Amino acid sequence: MSSQSNQAPELKRADTGEAPMTNDDPLAKAPARLNELLERGEISPEAFAEYSATADAARPLTLDTSGHMHNTAPTRSVEVGGMRFAYRRFGNPVGTPIVLLQHFMGNLDTYDPAITDALSTYREVILTDNAGVGLSTGMAPETVAGMAGDAASLIDALGLEQVDLFGFSMGGYVAQKITVNRPELVRRLILVGTGPRGGEGMSQLAPETAPLFGKTYDPQDVMWLPIFFSPSEASQAAGRHYLERVRARTEDRDVPVPAATVAAHSAAAREWGAAAPGSFDYLNGISQPTLVVNGSNDIVVPTVNSYILQQNLPNAELILFPDSNHGSHFQFTERFNGYVTDFLDR
Amino acid sequence: MSSQSNQAPELKRADTGEAPMTNDDPLAKAPARLNELLERGEISPEAFAEYSATADAARPLTLDTSGHMHNTAPTRSVEVGGMRFAYRRFGNPVGTPIVLLQHFMGNLDTYDPAITDALSTYREVILTDNAGVGLSTGMAPETVAGMAGDAASLIDALGLEQVDLFGFSMGGYVAQKITVNRPELVRRLILVGTGPRGGEGMSQLAPETAPLFGKTYDPQDVMWLPIFFSPSEASQAAGRHYLERVRARTEDRDVPVPAATVAAHSAAAREWGAAAPGSFDYLNGISQPTLVVNGSNDIVVPTVNSYILQQNLPNAELILFPDSNHGSHFQFTERFNGYVTDFLDR
Repeated sequence: MSSQSNQAPELKRADTGEAPMTNDDPLAKAPARLNELLERGEISPEAFAEYSATADAARPLTLDTSGHMHNTAPTRSVEVGGMRFAYRRFGNPVGTPIVLLQHFMGNLDTYDPAITDALSTYREVILTDNAGVGLSTGMAPETVAGMAGDAASLIDALGLEQVDLFGFSMGGYVAQKITVNRPELVRRLILVGTGPRGGEGMSQLAPETAPLFGKTYDPQDVMWLPIFFSPSEASQAAGRHYLERVRARTEDRDVPVPAATVAAHSAAAREWGAAAPGSFDYLNGISQPTLVVNGSNDIVVPTVNSYILQQNLPNAELILFPDSNHGSHFQFTERFNGYVTDFLDR
Repeated sequence: MSSQSNQAPELKRADTGEAPMTNDDPLAKAPARLNELLERGEISPEAFAEYSATADAARPLTLDTSGHMHNTAPTRSVEVGGMRFAYRRFGNPVGTPIVLLQHFMGNLDTYDPAITDALSTYREVILTDNAGVGLSTGMAPETVAGMAGDAASLIDALGLEQVDLFGFSMGGYVAQKITVNRPELVRRLILVGTGPRGGEGMSQLAPETAPLFGKTYDPQDVMWLPIFFSPSEASQAAGRHYLERVRARTEDRDVPVPAATVAAHSAAAREWGAAAPGSFDYLNGISQPTLVVNGSNDIVVPTVNSYILQQNLPNAELILFPDSNHGSHFQFTERFNGYVTDFLDR
């Protein structure tokens, strides 16, 4: 992989869909700046609809001058100690940037554009691949501490002095560990579908869940339907929409996570999840405001661990969604985006 | 007590304070209808500020023609089977009315105007005293089932065919029971600081908590500071603000809960809280969308019971606030109002 230059293409999205024109049309609340850009033909009607749906009329909007969104932001890389970390960076360069840390077997392409594009209207968004993941080189560490060290060195290499961290699942373990090691680096934490060191049922995957990660699917990404979504019709339908969203980027895609990294990260997750007396004690030292989110029945990191996080962190708010699983934020995306916006702006 | 006629006084609030004029001034978002009323001198600048702070620019606003808010709404009563139920009714007569069910030892004056006035901008709000509470006559039942029957008969007597229920603490037990008995009557449920039948630590108050209800305080209402708020400086400060708010109504106040009612409701709470096999089963039959809210450390109805509610109700979202106790909604009032608005409008 070579580092790509910033090509500043027009704002666009792969799916145009129809602009919603109902009574409570979010477009009615579009910031004046967006209306201007549309009138001058500087953004497409589709991009206008996308931005408007997530923008807050009360907040001044400065568009990323590159014009990138999730599906167009180039994959870049930065070298640290002989390793190259792959990342994508886009969004509104105001406030504290938000760094996203990915789940087991996920890469730059499994972040959800419905979330990252919403964030990008009011934050710079940095999607990351840890060492050995996707287009990042290096050996994947076999501990969460090792992954946290790598992620922090990527943040440092990007010259970011303080960030918000958004960790999903194993990315949530990494986010906690970075916060413990480098408290000055982290302003706020968002922990989704994750748990504390030595949480309940975290030393290994449940017997019903483990085989879901090892199977062959056609296409392979439908593996996320039973892992991220509940068995209900509504949740599975939301899952199919999620898959459409993460497939929509057609160019400059990331590559699958290699088997060696899967094995190393499995070991890291087992080590993090091993029950031990006092294993929650470190949470009391994390004073950063934290938003903890999960589904009602997370089959990967049992939901009770989100409750344990909230009970042991000094400044955490918990949101649990109904009829949902490990990827509740992909299912209740609009509500999730609302909670996150409130939380980051508070 | 006699039923009072609707006197339609001017919109007013006991505290005027200063209208906030900061950069993110909510007044900038005031609906056109409010601006009109202000210009025509039909509402005071204070009332304008109050309404604007909670109104949503995207929602058409129809003011309650009586102009009442929490502190001016007259105490009324309705007779059912020889009993007179005291209530107050005010707000925007659109959509589904919301009926509030009160906590142990609370009456019409311990509902929080910061919450009820926010609700009243987009809902009709009905504050209730159960049988034997405050100005309501009758004998307080010794079971939650009895209280639920009384509350439902009050709702029926008001001619309401479908309502949203907002139950706090023991009011949450009553709200659940009404929903089980009369599912067609209830559209949505808000359950704050409450728990299921036979929940954890609910058969009696914790040894540290029980004495807080029996002590003499000066003035007596400061009893709510240790019961509703956490020991932290921030939470206690929020508690003092809550007390200021509930003291601000100066005329036509409710009267204290008599000792016989306190005893009957204690028995009702013990009966509801008694552990029994399968005591959560009924929750699976409550299909209404439900918002469950609590503080991180509820010393009255332990917080884990909010988690149990969410885990057993088919369609419930859980919010747990940090550094808070039984009255977390009185502490994080603005966030709570935002969550409730989203939930009711969803």
